[in-house]
Amino acid sequence: MKGAIVYKPDSKELAKDVAEFVNSNGFQAEIVDFDKNLERYDFIIVIGGDGTILRVLQSVKNCPPIFAVNTGRVGLLTHCEPHEYKSVLIEALSNFEVEEFMRLCCVVDDRELLALNEFAILCSTPAKLVEMNVYVDDVKVESLRCDGMLISTPVGSTAYALSTGGPIIDPYLNSILIVPVAPFKLGWKPWVVRDDRIVRLEFDRSVFIVADGQSKIEHEESVEIRKSNYPARFFRISDRLRRTVEKLKKIC
Amino acid sequence: MKGAIVYKPDSKELAKDVAEFVNSNGFQAEIVDFDKNLERYDFIIVIGGDGTILRVLQSVKNCPPIFAVNTGRVGLLTHCEPHEYKSVLIEALSNFEVEEFMRLCCVVDDRELLALNEFAILCSTPAKLVEMNVYVDDVKVESLRCDGMLISTPVGSTAYALSTGGPIIDPYLNSILIVPVAPFKLGWKPWVVRDDRIVRLEFDRSVFIVADGQSKIEHEESVEIRKSNYPARFFRISDRLRRTVEKLKKIC
Amino acid sequence: MKGAIVYKPDSKELAKDVAEFVNSNGFQAEIVDFDKNLERYDFIIVIGGDGTILRVLQSVKNCPPIFAVNTGRVGLLTHCEPHEYKSVLIEALSNFEVEEFMRLCCVVDDRELLALNEFAILCSTPAKLVEMNVYVDDVKVESLRCDGMLISTPVGSTAYALSTGGPIIDPYLNSILIVPVAPFKLGWKPWVVRDDRIVRLEFDRSVFIVADGQSKIEHEESVEIRKSNYPARFFRISDRLRRTVEKLKKIC
Amino acid sequence: MKGAIVYKPDSKELAKDVAEFVNSNGFQAEIVDFDKNLERYDFIIVIGGDGTILRVLQSVKNCPPIFAVNTGRVGLLTHCEPHEYKSVLIEALSNFEVEEFMRLCCVVDDRELLALNEFAILCSTPAKLVEMNVYVDDVKVESLRCDGMLISTPVGSTAYALSTGGPIIDPYLNSILIVPVAPFKLGWKPWVVRDDRIVRLEFDRSVFIVADGQSKIEHEESVEIRKSNYPARFFRISDRLRRTVEKLKKIC
Repeated sequence: MKGAIVYKPDSKELAKDVAEFVNSNGFQAEIVDFDKNLERYDFIIVIGGDGTILRVLQSVKNCPPIFAVNTGRVGLLTHCEPHEYKSVLIEALSNFEVEEFMRLCCVVDDRELLALNEFAILCSTPAKLVEMNVYVDDVKVESLRCDGMLISTPVGSTAYALSTGGPIIDPYLNSILIVPVAPFKLGWKPWVVRDDRIVRLEFDRSVFIVADGQSKIEHEESVEIRKSNYPARFFRISDRLRRTVEKLKKIC
Repeated sequence: MKGAIVYKPDSKELAKDVAEFVNSNGFQAEIVDFDKNLERYDFIIVIGGDGTILRVLQSVKNCPPIFAVNTGRVGLLTHCEPHEYKSVLIEALSNFEVEEFMRLCCVVDDRELLALNEFAILCSTPAKLVEMNVYVDDVKVESLRCDGMLISTPVGSTAYALSTGGPIIDPYLNSILIVPVAPFKLGWKPWVVRDDRIVRLEFDRSVFIVADGQSKIEHEESVEIRKSNYPARFFRISDRLRRTVEKLKKIC
Repeated sequence: MKGAIVYKPDSKELAKDVAEFVNSNGFQAEIVDFDKNLERYDFIIVIGGDGTILRVLQSVKNCPPIFAVNTGRVGLLTHCEPHEYKSVLIEALSNFEVEEFMRLCCVVDDRELLALNEFAILCSTPAKLVEMNVYVDDVKVESLRCDGMLISTPVGSTAYALSTGGPIIDPYLNSILIVPVAPFKLGWKPWVVRDDRIVRLEFDRSVFIVADGQSKIEHEESVEIRKSNYPARFFRISDRLRRTVEKLKKIC
Repeated sequence: MKGAIVYKPDSKELAKDVAEFVNSNGFQAEIVDFDKNLERYDFIIVIGGDGTILRVLQSVKNCPPIFAVNTGRVGLLTHCEPHEYKSVLIEALSNFEVEEFMRLCCVVDDRELLALNEFAILCSTPAKLVEMNVYVDDVKVESLRCDGMLISTPVGSTAYALSTGGPIIDPYLNSILIVPVAPFKLGWKPWVVRDDRIVRLEFDRSVFIVADGQSKIEHEESVEIRKSNYPARFFRISDRLRRTVEKLKKIC
């Protein structure tokens, strides 16, 4: 069993410490680049923030379990802070309990994009409005002009969707959150639908489809987003709800 | 098989029409008062709006399937408008397809209250603030001063919770929505949690616990709300999501 | 020149300290009850929080300048905290610079109510909706069902109106803020109008008219609210905007 | 006295009709291009929507009074619909009553930008956050990460700012509205401040400064926005508040 360690640029020293610590405690792990095939490893240790985790996830479909040491700002997806990583990491690797969290997928131009947090469908011209129709299983639930639309997972409800009027969703409640960005409309609401629903968007001008703030594709006309068969996997956090509440206080 | 017909005061004539129509089309149903034991009937036909349905539901634990002809304003829970009841009702009674929707329960002073839409926990003094702590499975997710707190079902997301900043929730996504009424706090969010979570509220002064806007109990200190084992039953509406969207346009 | 000192019940000791301090520093002030005619004094020192100040203001029309030592929670209207009152109070009394802040008035059943923060027009039955029409200078700007409506001053934008989706308004921008409490409507907005506008509300059932959370009158049909000729007066706070921002952090 | 007539591309025929009508009714007006010096005319007739008016305003500092016939969607700034232009226009030109509405200005790289609706300060990278500090007369009133920030006039409160949680402001209440776009923060509020306040923004990465959705400049570090000495001028609409309310119903 062998793990990969990836780190964000400013966390190289900590990554080296972690590598040494892991390897001298009965586990195997090596520092690798983001472009390495990470699916081949048995686990991934991320030294960074949510952005680093999301970057890793863009390139893995069959996701090895991820453990993350937070060197970013909030780190909602991380397992611990740098000063406490030793005990938390050893316990995680020893027990090897894993949790899965749903991802969304979206096929654009024969390319399949995956998102753990959200797909942001954004007007490609700043400060211009795009007209959007939103369908849930072929029922048109919304029609409006806006800067964009977010299709988010429960985990993503504390990411971009938090900025646009979405609710906070229990990470263990499988569901899809739909919420507009800057809707030019008086009467609208976020929608939370069952995770087996298919969400389709139609738009009247070119948009960017942005997966987790990482990958960006320009596209026209319409797009379909649904639950992916490839969830993200993380080492289990037993009190995830409590940790989420604590982290949220940092963005108050 | 025998049905009960209940009606709101202004809909007596229509109730008589419905009774005659049902009985002359091979089904049995009788007009009864609200205080009759409605659980003994095989189905209930309500002539009224959402308020009338909610009133009926306050007195039934084991809920016979309900069919409702809308004579109220919006009628989100109803099956049809008065002009179209004949075909829709006959089809419903013939097919007898039934849907269940979760209710919440709350035990106060040895009395068990049930709610299809929501429990509103409201400060018993108007224009005064109550300090509330909200726990989800023992995790304190919120602490604030407010006019009150709503614990709502998905079906209830288009009722009182719609007025207080809650999202619209897929009626088929089992979950519990928690949203404050007039929170005196800058940073707060509605929460949507899994339906097996237990929600506990603590409050620093006397509150009214209001079930579906129908039953009201004054109470102090704390209360626990969870999914009830007694769901509400309705004759199936095949395109409920579409109907909800149409109805919502009336309250725009 | 003689001042009155009023205090909220739990602040009696501090009130005595303040009285002694003031009188031994060349000023005259005496501790009095709330029911004393406070208009006859040249200034008022309040030992308490915003609630205590608002209570004082209910009984004064021609308002002597108020100085407040905060013994409440937030104390947005107060001048200082207990530990720092000596220097701040002496400076205020020496300079005697006074600021005026607009109040709203409303005549109900031949009784004139005044409010520094807001008039809350609330359905007199909890968890029931009242239908309201809102007119600004005879233009119907809103029509909806809700728990109530707030007509607020700029100063009041950080009080009850903060809880119901209102913006924060510069205390020096004379204006009237209109914002519903729990509107059962998808599309609505707070309105901020010029201070010489007359706001009229029509309602379809009995309401409580609550002035600053202090005085409450039950009323039917309609009510008119406008700027009062009797502003509230406070000893000047030179960096009031900064102080407001600091205080707001306490309710985050 | 001579007027200019400008039109948006799809409204050429109506522009010709208007020109003929005006000239055969005792007034002088000619159809001109947008790049013509419009300040030299005594009045401007715009055939188009709000976008067309805003485009015209980008090129005029000393603004001749504008009359607009709505051929756009909502047309909040326009005076009438195409079918009714004759009587409304003749009355306007005969009475020649003019209203002024404040504009905001902002000097960037020695270029002075003007905005009737708003300045949108937007992160130049889509789906990335910019950290912003907002100062009002040197008091830091907000600090957050967001997609952008809007500094809006009262007239602009029904434009972009309506999409981002701002209130509706009386067009006759001189004031400046500050509201973030997609703030990644739980506790924030729109601010409405006096029109003589100076608003300064600091940002930690490159932004676009967009004036009325028309002119766009990339910029770094900080920017200052204040009331301009060059208001926009429009032919008077006697019941502007009522017209605004009617128009808002179209975007419900």
